[in-house]
Amino acid sequence: MNETRYDWLSDRWVIFAPNREDRPDQYRPLGPVSPNELIECPFCSGREHETPLPTLVLPEHDFDETTTNRRAESARNNRQPWQVRVVPNKFPAVLRHESFADERVHTHFYSGPENADSETSFGNSRERQLLTAQAKHLFQRNIPRGAHEVIIESPIHVDSITSLPAEHIAIIFEAYRRRLAHWRAQRDLKYAVVFKNYGADAGASLFHSHSQLISLDFVPRDIERINQRLVLHHEQYGSCYICQLMNEEEERQERILYSSEYFVALCPFASRFPYSFSIVPRTHRSRYEEISPAELSDLAVAVKKTLNALESARPSAAYNFVLQTSPFGGCLEAAHHWRLRVIPRLSKVAGFEWGSDCFINTVTPEQAATTLRSFLK
Amino acid sequence: MNETRYDWLSDRWVIFAPNREDRPDQYRPLGPVSPNELIECPFCSGREHETPLPTLVLPEHDFDETTTNRRAESARNNRQPWQVRVVPNKFPAVLRHESFADERVHTHFYSGPENADSETSFGNSRERQLLTAQAKHLFQRNIPRGAHEVIIESPIHVDSITSLPAEHIAIIFEAYRRRLAHWRAQRDLKYAVVFKNYGADAGASLFHSHSQLISLDFVPRDIERINQRLVLHHEQYGSCYICQLMNEEEERQERILYSSEYFVALCPFASRFPYSFSIVPRTHRSRYEEISPAELSDLAVAVKKTLNALESARPSAAYNFVLQTSPFGGCLEAAHHWRLRVIPRLSKVAGFEWGSDCFINTVTPEQAATTLRSFLK
Repeated sequence: MNETRYDWLSDRWVIFAPNREDRPDQYRPLGPVSPNELIECPFCSGREHETPLPTLVLPEHDFDETTTNRRAESARNNRQPWQVRVVPNKFPAVLRHESFADERVHTHFYSGPENADSETSFGNSRERQLLTAQAKHLFQRNIPRGAHEVIIESPIHVDSITSLPAEHIAIIFEAYRRRLAHWRAQRDLKYAVVFKNYGADAGASLFHSHSQLISLDFVPRDIERINQRLVLHHEQYGSCYICQLMNEEEERQERILYSSEYFVALCPFASRFPYSFSIVPRTHRSRYEEISPAELSDLAVAVKKTLNALESARPSAAYNFVLQTSPFGGCLEAAHHWRLRVIPRLSKVAGFEWGSDCFINTVTPEQAATTLRSFLK
Repeated sequence: MNETRYDWLSDRWVIFAPNREDRPDQYRPLGPVSPNELIECPFCSGREHETPLPTLVLPEHDFDETTTNRRAESARNNRQPWQVRVVPNKFPAVLRHESFADERVHTHFYSGPENADSETSFGNSRERQLLTAQAKHLFQRNIPRGAHEVIIESPIHVDSITSLPAEHIAIIFEAYRRRLAHWRAQRDLKYAVVFKNYGADAGASLFHSHSQLISLDFVPRDIERINQRLVLHHEQYGSCYICQLMNEEEERQERILYSSEYFVALCPFASRFPYSFSIVPRTHRSRYEEISPAELSDLAVAVKKTLNALESARPSAAYNFVLQTSPFGGCLEAAHHWRLRVIPRLSKVAGFEWGSDCFINTVTPEQAATTLRSFLK
């Protein structure tokens, strides 16, 4: 059974998911092989029976939700062509939201001694009882609930999202939008993140281009802290931190990699990883899910062009991207600004970083932006 | 020129060290090869001229500092045999401590606009001036000073510290002790961490068994936060958090992997990585540097046995270890407890983790302890 445990000292929850040990890993046995060498891919069109029933099917580029839903239903039943499918992860990190107990609240409560058996084995001395009572904060645990979904980005076998046309990428980002909106509407869910692991060094285990969504019934502590700082900034300066930062960055231009009508891509001033960049909407927008169709098309082009530049500049680069929308409920909308963070995995996180959380980056964002700009097509 | 930059939103300093881009990487061109295939290793006995002059040479197992210093001097001048050498890193992440300016203080100050040129290009409108004044917190930067040293763990070419006898490992840990004590005694230095990167996935770039020390003129924010929590615990419970935790863990025994006269090795309750464990002194001790000779010998055995168990249980595992001693100055000694953290790198940190700082671990610490115990010799 999966569970969360609280590291009191580091103020951080960790999800234990032993079930994920069994998931297949196409990278593990052989090292990376060409996608063509793979015969059986569970994400390819025609093998839909190998994945759970989809929670969303987008048959074609069409942002009219009514039409799409009708077509989706038909695609679901009749195996009609699809462009993007969203399915529950067969090896979920969290328990399905459906099993929620109403009374449940996942927060920093003290869940009591670790288990009844070990408690009785403690003996009955007063000193021991006191110690145990005091020690409740040491062993807090819980059951993580929410959803873990896979966004299958294409019916044909491509390994990189950049192989797809921008119009198709827009459908993928539309799928993110709909699933995030769906999970935000669920009572008891507090947070969701969409992310992509591309390449073995970024944690991918399957080649076929895909991304994932995990929603949670708690806000991770780091996200809480960042939100507190966004709110603090708004109180102190009367403005959104990201809006102010983007204004300054656009003046300076040193770290801007790409800009379009609705979006700016920039290499962050204090980024931890070489060549990392963020794609940020120009207009203040807290929730990604409120993106308009025009913005979505523009975003798809920005994603394709900037990731293409990364893949050209550093052809072997694995990378993650992370779509950070605002937490569900209780978030100050004026202070939060969604963004898509791209994190290339060209360097290894080493002992110094784990021992200090202070990262050493060998490439300045100014140099990264210059290099990436030169590879923009 | 290396510099630190402050990520205001994440409340974290990042070190930019473009000089480290040029360091050699024995793993990069060929993938891992057998140590025997390497002809030229700068860390091997006989190639001392390829490294900077040592800051410490330990010729043999001898904890009498006067004798050792005399022998070290002789070893340094006459190329006499050595067991452990400490040399400055040729590609340091930080500027040498010697170049300190006295008036310098590295803390969360606002360092002003990013550079004079960009400031003049802002134009002179009142609005712009206000914006720039407000934006000072966006672009804080500094020069990181301290030391970056390499501990060469053996004159002969071995790739794992476990290939060395426990008596030799004790000399390595004695070298850590002396260098940490040295850096703690320097005015203006605030923190130091000793760490090992073993294997490419853990960030190693050279095969020959070695570890590193980085001392800094600032306390990384994460370390500050952890210290604040240790102090908080001491205020609330009147005890050291780690001492209390160890008491509880020794009662429960579920996560204990190894114990000896002076040390306990355990898999932490909420560890982020499969098979990670910590070696912790039984007696409350804030500073690693105060370890006694008897404890040092006992620690060397604990390190050899537990790392051996890890290498047997997961033969291909890369790992980091991190020696966390108390920050220099201003630390509540009653609240801090040093520990050696071992972090196997069997899983990849993926998008979800970067997007939430919430880690998914597929192996419970109870299972990890059981497995590792079964491989103890």
